[in-house]
Amino acid sequence: MNTPDQPAPPAARKKRRGRARSFRENQAAQPPQAAAPYITRALPPYDMLDEEGIARIEEHADLILREFGIEIRGDEEALRLFEQAGAERDGARLKFAPGLVGHIVRQSAPAEFTHVARNPARSVRIGGAHTALAPAYGPPFVRDLERGRRYGTLEDFRNLIKLAYLSPHIHYSGGTICEPCDIAVNQRHLDMVYAHMRWSDKPFLGSVTTAERARESIEMCRILFGADALERDCVILGNVNVNSPLVYDGMVTQVMRAYAEAGQGVVISPFILGGAMGPVTPAASIAQAHAEAMVGVALTQLARPGAPVIYGNFFTTMSLRSGAPTFGQPEVMLAYMTVGQLARRAGIPLRCGGALTSAKTGDAQSAQESAQSLLPALLSGANFVLHAAGWLEGGLTMGYEKFIQDADRCGMMVKMFQGLALDENAFALEAYREMEHGQHFLGAAHTLHNYTTAFYESTVADSKSYEQWLEEGEHNDEQRACEIWKRQLREYEPPPLDQAADEALREYVARTKAGREDRWY
Amino acid sequence: MNTPDQPAPPAARKKRRGRARSFRENQAAQPPQAAAPYITRALPPYDMLDEEGIARIEEHADLILREFGIEIRGDEEALRLFEQAGAERDGARLKFAPGLVGHIVRQSAPAEFTHVARNPARSVRIGGAHTALAPAYGPPFVRDLERGRRYGTLEDFRNLIKLAYLSPHIHYSGGTICEPCDIAVNQRHLDMVYAHMRWSDKPFLGSVTTAERARESIEMCRILFGADALERDCVILGNVNVNSPLVYDGMVTQVMRAYAEAGQGVVISPFILGGAMGPVTPAASIAQAHAEAMVGVALTQLARPGAPVIYGNFFTTMSLRSGAPTFGQPEVMLAYMTVGQLARRAGIPLRCGGALTSAKTGDAQSAQESAQSLLPALLSGANFVLHAAGWLEGGLTMGYEKFIQDADRCGMMVKMFQGLALDENAFALEAYREMEHGQHFLGAAHTLHNYTTAFYESTVADSKSYEQWLEEGEHNDEQRACEIWKRQLREYEPPPLDQAADEALREYVARTKAGREDRWY
Repeated sequence: MNTPDQPAPPAARKKRRGRARSFRENQAAQPPQAAAPYITRALPPYDMLDEEGIARIEEHADLILREFGIEIRGDEEALRLFEQAGAERDGARLKFAPGLVGHIVRQSAPAEFTHVARNPARSVRIGGAHTALAPAYGPPFVRDLERGRRYGTLEDFRNLIKLAYLSPHIHYSGGTICEPCDIAVNQRHLDMVYAHMRWSDKPFLGSVTTAERARESIEMCRILFGADALERDCVILGNVNVNSPLVYDGMVTQVMRAYAEAGQGVVISPFILGGAMGPVTPAASIAQAHAEAMVGVALTQLARPGAPVIYGNFFTTMSLRSGAPTFGQPEVMLAYMTVGQLARRAGIPLRCGGALTSAKTGDAQSAQESAQSLLPALLSGANFVLHAAGWLEGGLTMGYEKFIQDADRCGMMVKMFQGLALDENAFALEAYREMEHGQHFLGAAHTLHNYTTAFYESTVADSKSYEQWLEEGEHNDEQRACEIWKRQLREYEPPPLDQAADEALREYVARTKAGREDRWY
Repeated sequence: MNTPDQPAPPAARKKRRGRARSFRENQAAQPPQAAAPYITRALPPYDMLDEEGIARIEEHADLILREFGIEIRGDEEALRLFEQAGAERDGARLKFAPGLVGHIVRQSAPAEFTHVARNPARSVRIGGAHTALAPAYGPPFVRDLERGRRYGTLEDFRNLIKLAYLSPHIHYSGGTICEPCDIAVNQRHLDMVYAHMRWSDKPFLGSVTTAERARESIEMCRILFGADALERDCVILGNVNVNSPLVYDGMVTQVMRAYAEAGQGVVISPFILGGAMGPVTPAASIAQAHAEAMVGVALTQLARPGAPVIYGNFFTTMSLRSGAPTFGQPEVMLAYMTVGQLARRAGIPLRCGGALTSAKTGDAQSAQESAQSLLPALLSGANFVLHAAGWLEGGLTMGYEKFIQDADRCGMMVKMFQGLALDENAFALEAYREMEHGQHFLGAAHTLHNYTTAFYESTVADSKSYEQWLEEGEHNDEQRACEIWKRQLREYEPPPLDQAADEALREYVARTKAGREDRWY
């Protein structure tokens, strides 16, 4: 009897389980694989629009820049730089002849650069076929299954850095992985940057809340990496949002200039909720975001030609029912693909959003929306994926379980974008010579030779039988993720840090803190 | 202060909520939109492999057909048809000269066909840029949050058909939407086909468990549609699996011939768990599946040239930890894309898997794996997506909540594959003329004109604030889906069915059942 698409009958499954046990025994004897410090995509980006379509978006962005222009409110130096470069200035407003912004960008913005980590084996290549995945950024709240939702603390901040450090699929230590709300606003960036340096050896992001805090983040890098290194290498990124529509706050451009002038990287993302900071039709919001981001990229190049820079995008939709932002929706996927094409045509690295969701817990909505954000980000050819792990509730909350669920999802992306092996081994000719028609390949020499690398093994998913799952307590995905982060924090061991550098950093933090009164806003 | 990627501050959110309420009032006054009976993809398929890569897969499939061949065990007529067409026969084994199978397929297999529904407005176009989504097929168990997991019954079968009927994003009524285990195995297909005809007006699939049951399914269509219609139109599909590796059971080929000889559609899918029914390396299993499926497609054309047929694929991975099948994994996504290219090159419609998962409930794992199945299926250019809604536990269970969650996911695909509007309205020039720099677009005339169609509105997701969500009971995605299916079943009204046809069908079912003793295997 033909039973379409059914798993193998019980007898065969039993046999498979038997085989699986011997797989595990074999596996234990093999050395752990060193994870690559970033993804090098073997798959092509998905070019969704044809030449005519993508050119229309670019033309509309040019039209916005020419007809409406961009305002920079409160940074005379930025306005001066653009005026000098040929922009037409009227008060705070700058208008650009068609092609001018693109010309400035093309003249010096690097197509690729390396973000150097304190452990050189963790340095990340940004641009071209390379993609790096970074944790969520900015949530004031944290959440875990046992303690619920609460304001983040410096302890949470450290815990989350440790989880990011431990994941082979997360390439960054992150930036504001959560807000350490127990530390004063004008002090916490010092603790955050120090925590990244102390508890991880992966690359990280610095403060962008004021130009002074940006400079202090950079100063700490000077202590850790040495002043020469900063002249030579990108060792820190600053991630800023545009004040869309069509405005840059001067505080933002000052921060951008602080990073660029020090030769450090800037990520510039218009944050557009369609219908609010941009028109409700995605094409218009994408064109507007392109205009805004390109102006930001151009500013970094005017501040310091050749400064590392990432063109970012953060477009999302809203719910008609609640007016709240929604994530992982169809229009956002279309926007990702379009932005990917725009960035490739501009010849600069792209940042896209990661595992985004408005869900409050690590439930099905959370996974659904996150999967429909992360996969499109990779397909779009994004080079730097911020918010790839932990993000809940539209970015208000960093979830411990969500972090683990997302890190697993990132692992799937890492594996997928290695592409499909098409070598002789992949075609398994000898296996067909060994086996009979209708006979399963479980015992084939080819299977035994390849099983440990053939398939991604999820750390969180449960693919066991219903009966086994019942027996083991009917845990859902979020509950399994909870077990994992607790175990990981128990087993965490910090990477080595040079003692003199550590002392110098602590001394700098203490001295800088001592010089100012706590401010909580 | 610049707060990267944060939602708008409370004041703006409040304003948005106010606006959202007036949106809803407007919306209520508008007539409901008629859903399209299938997707016509405005986005190109994702061509993942280059010419050299995809040609290597085809060459390897040809090599398998030439060197190892395919066995058809227990269908002399099928063997005879292939021998007559030029295959080399040795007992039950057929070997094929390179290109022979492709030649048979190309000679007569239609690139597109219409599956006619009893309501012509529901007829579905299969092939080319068209995609139809169908419910999960075959689960012996059903599950809902209130009653848990249990064997499916005819009542469940009817309930699920009603849910499929009510979803604007599910284009098929389905086939064995669950096994009605309270009805004898040799009788239940009559009740199933009748239920599709009675409680839905969408296209459906018939029995494939024996050739007799296939013929009885077709006979019921003759009663409903008329004998002439069957000569002219495809009104029913039979969905079969290959007995991989490299074997067709004669029972399967007899079922295929029964459908094809009646001019009805056949879907042929090798069901390959990598490492079991095919090699553990995906490229080999894809090549093998291509060889197997193409032989099946060719058989339908030898049985009746021009018979509607769908080239299917069902490749999945296994867990090293449990030996059980896993879904939505990176290797499967790669396989989808590859198979899409193979089907396009063969010029025939493609079936891919839908919302697949090994999760036991509608949790994050379930959504994660389902999203990473459904989106790749659409990107691959699949024309017929079986298992697009309801599938849990590797196909062993049909979930009521999962069905609702998946139908929502299907809605996102429907919207996404309409593509990105690039007309004058989409670029919203007048909105920029109306608004000031830095001013939100919420009140723009362009926003008011476009908001109801701009963004997909999820039926299950909750994008409300944390506080609202708490107040409303902290429901997770699965709990919300439970409310939806219960309300839908309460509000369901059957589509009209001609009374004479209904009586004739009931009479046929009663007469056929009376003629045989119950068999439970």
